[in-house]
This record gives sequence, C-alpha cells and structure tokens, in this order.
Amino acid sequence: MSMGGAHLSKPISEGLSDWRRTAAAASDAGALGGMIDAVARHGEDRIGAWQVLDGAATLAQAETLVARRKWRDLALAGVPVGIKDIFDTADFVTSYGSEIYAAHRPAADAAAVATLRRAGAILPGKTVTTEFAYWKAGKTRNPHDLGHSPGGSSAGSAAAVAAGMVPLAIGSQTAASTIRPASYCGIVGFKPSLHRISLAGVKGLAGSMDTVGCFARSVADVAVLAAVLAGRPDWAVSAGQGRAPSLRLVAVPEWDLAAPWMRDSIRRIAGHLGECGAQVQTGRAASRFADLAGVQSRLMAAEAARDLAAEASRCRHRLSAPLRALIELGEAMPAAQQDADCAQRAEALAHIARLFDGADILMAPSALDEAPTYGDGTGSPELSRAWTLLGLPSISLPAGRGPKGLPFGIQLAAPPGEDIRLLDAARWIETHLPDPAQHDRA
Amino acid sequence: MSMGGAHLSKPISEGLSDWRRTAAAASDAGALGGMIDAVARHGEDRIGAWQVLDGAATLAQAETLVARRKWRDLALAGVPVGIKDIFDTADFVTSYGSEIYAAHRPAADAAAVATLRRAGAILPGKTVTTEFAYWKAGKTRNPHDLGHSPGGSSAGSAAAVAAGMVPLAIGSQTAASTIRPASYCGIVGFKPSLHRISLAGVKGLAGSMDTVGCFARSVADVAVLAAVLAGRPDWAVSAGQGRAPSLRLVAVPEWDLAAPWMRDSIRRIAGHLGECGAQVQTGRAASRFADLAGVQSRLMAAEAARDLAAEASRCRHRLSAPLRALIELGEAMPAAQQDADCAQRAEALAHIARLFDGADILMAPSALDEAPTYGDGTGSPELSRAWTLLGLPSISLPAGRGPKGLPFGIQLAAPPGEDIRLLDAARWIETHLPDPAQHDRA
Repeated sequence: MSMGGAHLSKPISEGLSDWRRTAAAASDAGALGGMIDAVARHGEDRIGAWQVLDGAATLAQAETLVARRKWRDLALAGVPVGIKDIFDTADFVTSYGSEIYAAHRPAADAAAVATLRRAGAILPGKTVTTEFAYWKAGKTRNPHDLGHSPGGSSAGSAAAVAAGMVPLAIGSQTAASTIRPASYCGIVGFKPSLHRISLAGVKGLAGSMDTVGCFARSVADVAVLAAVLAGRPDWAVSAGQGRAPSLRLVAVPEWDLAAPWMRDSIRRIAGHLGECGAQVQTGRAASRFADLAGVQSRLMAAEAARDLAAEASRCRHRLSAPLRALIELGEAMPAAQQDADCAQRAEALAHIARLFDGADILMAPSALDEAPTYGDGTGSPELSRAWTLLGLPSISLPAGRGPKGLPFGIQLAAPPGEDIRLLDAARWIETHLPDPAQHDRA
Repeated sequence: MSMGGAHLSKPISEGLSDWRRTAAAASDAGALGGMIDAVARHGEDRIGAWQVLDGAATLAQAETLVARRKWRDLALAGVPVGIKDIFDTADFVTSYGSEIYAAHRPAADAAAVATLRRAGAILPGKTVTTEFAYWKAGKTRNPHDLGHSPGGSSAGSAAAVAAGMVPLAIGSQTAASTIRPASYCGIVGFKPSLHRISLAGVKGLAGSMDTVGCFARSVADVAVLAAVLAGRPDWAVSAGQGRAPSLRLVAVPEWDLAAPWMRDSIRRIAGHLGECGAQVQTGRAASRFADLAGVQSRLMAAEAARDLAAEASRCRHRLSAPLRALIELGEAMPAAQQDADCAQRAEALAHIARLFDGADILMAPSALDEAPTYGDGTGSPELSRAWTLLGLPSISLPAGRGPKGLPFGIQLAAPPGEDIRLLDAARWIETHLPDPAQHDRA
C-alpha cells in the first residue's frame, strides 16, 4: 500500500544520542561534513525535502565546529538540524517559499539559527516551506508514501526528519504548521509557549500567533532541541517521575470535521491511556471556547495583511492566488470584527483554567485525517487553530496508522507557560500508547 | 535658560493638514522633494536627529508619488515621516544603531514602512536610534535645549518631530522608548495595543513586548498616523463626542522615584482635569500589579538574550558594555524566575479590570523627571515598564515645563485593545490641560 517505505532511510539511527556519538567519533571535519551531507541527500531526489542543500557549506561548518575547544561537549555537537526556509541564514539563500526572494541572501542568521550553531549544530541546508508559511505547497513528498503530501507549512522539515535525513529540524506554526506535518509524517512536533523561542529573523505571517516549532522522532529528542532554542536546560529533563497525567478531551465544533476513524481512534487511545493509569475526562467546550477556530482564522487574515504589506504593496501579482485572497480578506476585515476577535481571545485566556477543568493537559486528534494526496493541498489546520490562537504549548505524537496506512498523531496542549508539564505528559503518553502505534513507530 | 529654542524650526506648520496642503500645492515632484529635504535638514547640524538623510532618495520618492493617479487623495499624500533606524528600508542603509550593521542594506522595507509609502508618505531618511533600541545613545540632542538628551531609544524620531523637521515619525517601545522621548521632547507619543501595527522587518529587542510607536505634535495627527499603520481608519475619527473621561492615578512603588515636582504636577493636573469635568480617582495598585516593573525588566533581559543571539554569538565584543550586561543577565536568568515572571504577567492580565477599577483610563507621569543632561544617558524607563509589559495601549501628552524649563508629559493607558477609548480620552485631555501647558505647547 505504501509507496514510500523504501525511502525511509535510517543510515545512522533515529536517535539524537546515536547521532552525537557518530559525530563525535568522526575522524576529522571532512568525514563529519561528508557524512552529514550524504545522509541529508539520501532519498532527496524522490522526497524533495530541501530547498537548498549545500555540501560545501556543510563542510565549512564542520571545520568551524571541530576547531572549537571541547566541541564534543556541546548539546548538539555535530548534529545536523533542518531549518525551514523562513529562517534567515547568512550562508544560504533564504527565499521564504516565494519567487520574490529567490536570490535573497540575508545579512545575518535568525536568532534561533545562531543559537543552534552555538550549541554545535550543523545545517546541511534549508528545508522547503509553503509560500511565506501559508498555503501554496512546494515540491516535498510524504516519505511514508510519495503520492501524498507531508502537510504544511513546515513540509520539508517534517519530511526530512521522517525520512531520517536529519534527526532534528525547526519550523513554525501560525495555525497548524508544526502539528499537522508532524501528524502526517509520523514524527513528534512541539510548539512551545509564545516567545520562548525567538522569532528574530523569521519571516512573519501573523505576529501574534507565529511560533517556532521543533521536530524530532521522540519526545526526548524534541525536548533537547527546544531546550537549546529556548535557553531552558530544564525542559530537556523529565520532571514528572513518570507520573500518569490527567487528560481532557474537549469536543469543539471542528471535531465534527474529522474523519470518523479519527474520532474513533482518539477515543480508543484515550480509553487505553485510562487503562494504563491516566485520568481521562471528556466534555464539550464552554461557549467562550467554542468558536476560537473562527477567531484564529480571521485574526490570521488581518495580521497577514499587515505583516506582508511590503510584498502586497510592491509585487502583489507575484503572490499566489490563495495568499492574495488571504491578504484581501484581511485588508477588508471590519474594525469591529477585529476588536471583537481580540477581545474574545483575551476573555478565553483570562478563563483558561476552565478549559482544562482541573486536567493537566488537553488531548485531541492532530489533524482531521491522514495526509491528503500530493497536489491536493497540505491538509486542514482546523484542529490546531484554537490552541495556537491562545498560545497554548502543544505537541503531536505519532499514534498509529489510518485506513490508507499513513501515520496520524494525537495532539496535546497545556496552559500557556506550562511547557514542562506538557513535555512530561508527552513522555508518559509516548511510552503508553496502544500497541499498534508502538509497532508503527518502531 | 533654554539653549535650543532657536532650533525649533516651523517652516511649514506643526499640523499634518498644513503639510498635506503644502505638499498638494507643490508645482512638481522636484519642488515637493526639495521642500521636504530642506525642512528635514533645518537645524540638523546641531540636533543630529538623522542617521541617514538622502535628498536624492527623497526626490525619487516624490517622483514616484506624483506619478500615481489621484495621489493627493492619499491619507499621507506627500507627508514626510521619520523612520527609526531599526525599521528595514530597501532604499536606505539600516544600521540598527550598531556598527555591526554600518553598511547593511535590507532586501525589503519593513511592513510598516511599506504601509506608509502606500499611503503617500515620503521618507527623508532614517532617524537615530540607540544601539538595537536599548541603552547606548547616539548623537541626537534635545531640540528644546541642545545640552540635554532627547530620551531614547526612539531619539531621532522624537527630536525630528519636536524640531519641526517632519510632522510625523515612527519608533518603537519595549520598556519606555516612545513615551519617554515624547515626554522629554514635548510631543505626543502613542504606543498602540500589541500586534495592531506590524513588527515585520523591525529589529527586535524583546519579542513579547516590542511595539511600534508613533510621534506627532497633536493627538489628532498621531491618530492619523497610527490609523494608517494599523489599517484602522476608525482610529483617526473621534468617537467620544468630547465626553470627559474617568481617570485613575494608581500609585506604584516606582512613583517614589519620580522628582517631587513631577509628583506635584501630576496631582495638580489631575485636580484641574477634575474641575473641568473628568472623574478622578486615586489609589495604590493591588499587590499583583505592584512589582510589574521588575517583571518587565527581567523578561526584557531574558528575551533580549534570545532575540540578539546572532549578534551575541558572532560579535559580542562589538556590542556596548550595557547591552552585553543585559544579554548576560538574560542568559543567566534562572528558569524558575522566567516562569514566575510570565505567570505573574498572565495573572495581571487576567485581572486587568481591577487595575482600572471602573475608570476609563490610567494616568501617570510619563517619566521621572525632565530630560537628563546630554551624555548622561537617555533617562529612566521605570514609569512605563509595567504598562508595556501588559501590552496596554498608552500615550504621552505634553503637559508643561519642569524646573529646568524643559517639557514633561503625562502618560495615559487603556486596557488591551481599547485604543479608541485611549485616543478619545487623550483628545479630551489635550484640550483641557491647565493653562501653562497650553501655553508651552502653543
């Protein structure tokens, strides 16, 4: 059924610690750079995860790294990290998924990129993004089945991690651009609370919601990546002593859009976690939380119209039709609607404890379905809009396979600022998912 | 007493509508560009408001403008606007107040800059900013007395408006970088709610608090500027029908740092506004609102360490000692402290109505004192830290002269999202300030 299984290369290992060991054992910078470049290229002709892939730049970074004193002690010593092409890089063209910036070479690295380099990471290149992290897809295919989409907007980062080209990658999320591709590609995607990871040097889409996202193949690995980026070593260490979390499934109107098998799966998984010791409660969202997907959608349009004003003003005809439509929707958004939407977000945040109703974390499907067919869009962001609007830290864990045999994920969220609580719950859930999921993830 | 009065040129007028009329009457693009350049240069040799001032670029913009159909109908038709040099511009070097970027020429305009150009504005150049909008001052002098500072970090924008070089200018605020220079320079400074004006293409200092600020010589003019930038025509129209607002003076610990004459002045002004019909209440802030200046200060350090990671990593030695100290403070900030500070901000926001206690707006001094002596720093941000932390829209209105004969302002704030309420209250207060202030502002 799956065309793509053969493209899931694992030349070193899935795990960050193995990558670190291999890198540390490299005989010299040339061997290190060459190994990283070769692994990053493996399957690229079919998957298309990379916008730019530059062996010479990779080698140069390896040389800089091994010239550093005690480089092997760094948190990401010699570890390759995929960088979504909306992050500025001084040594790679950065085109934001748009022909407008096809030859753009930024003056400096984005802050997140500089932080990764400082921690010893090596960047083999830049990963494919949809146009300005919005809708229009690039060339990337889903490594699990080349006939399907990897999701978006962080398409290349998710596909590169899923295909074993890199153990870690960064992307972003304004609606569902980290959680959804993680779900479709069968990997872990983590979006921390707002402003924990710097957005400096990241091309913005909707400033009040844009968040840096992290991809890896396990919660432990994604926590190391996020800990480096946020300057929060405590995020990388489990603080929960393996305690079973309490979970809440809050049905919102957009759940009705999910495929029936997906709704069945989330209930089945919740039941299983309950049998393992988690407290599970279900309920419907109070009215103040029920229409947040619509609020997110309207605010995103209004902010995109402002944040992309330079492109919309100078060369609107070079934007895709869907992006022009978003901007025009935003430009025409009535003032009273914007004020009402901002007020509803503030009201929901002021009462956020009621959304959790005593539970540690919320749980939901990560996406409405498995990945759509390639060429048929990047899938729907509906199930992540509300939590992104509120700035809830959220994470997607691979949870099994759907009817087409493609991966799907479950999405967890904690209140703003409770990133550690979320990571601890995710660690517990990762090890207690039902067997089919465990099997698929092996 | 004032050395600088002679430098307060008003070659056209203080008012935006006069500038628009003059621009519309220009015989051709050459006349328009030449007029704008000449006015912007007037007094510059002594004031030093401009980082870049480029007559050829000004002329080119004027030519582009008058080639547009019905250009005279645009909201800012032919109106010069000063742009703080942390906003990217494609036609001017943009150095962020740092030697690191002395030759930096961005690929595109910041979104706010593009929005101004689309509305017909002309940019004579870029105004002086402190280093990365933090502490280290540039060359700019206070137009009211060349021996004094204009404040910071939006030094050049405030000075250019105060000196009559431009009717409008934009800056930013992370702690007090719009309110304080407006106060010292005797002009109006307005910082809207978060994310109403795009930060795309603006060099960031602390992402959760950075906000675009607007300068003008009246509330009416600053409202037009902000309305264009936010895409909110309703902001430019008074909705209050001249209703007297209810005001609250909330004493916080940092008030004790203000000069005694400043504390007397704010009480005297409040009393006068009460006699004019405003309801005035006073009180002390509840404990959850009492330490917010400290929270702001710590979060700014933690975020600056992340947002300036590229510079701190690549060329820390080229940063000023105060900025290095801020970054090192942020890098060493304990995780638990950051979490507690974020939680305190969220808690304060969830109970923001209690801070206002039924009043329409809050009122406080804009700064602790008059402008400090030139070379002696840019003054203290203490009185704006808390309101910036909470994202309250705030505005500084010129309210008189202090013992040294220099201007001082009063600062007003509304709850997040209540920008229209704030502008309406400011319009009323502007016309009801006590006589000495009226006199000084004439």
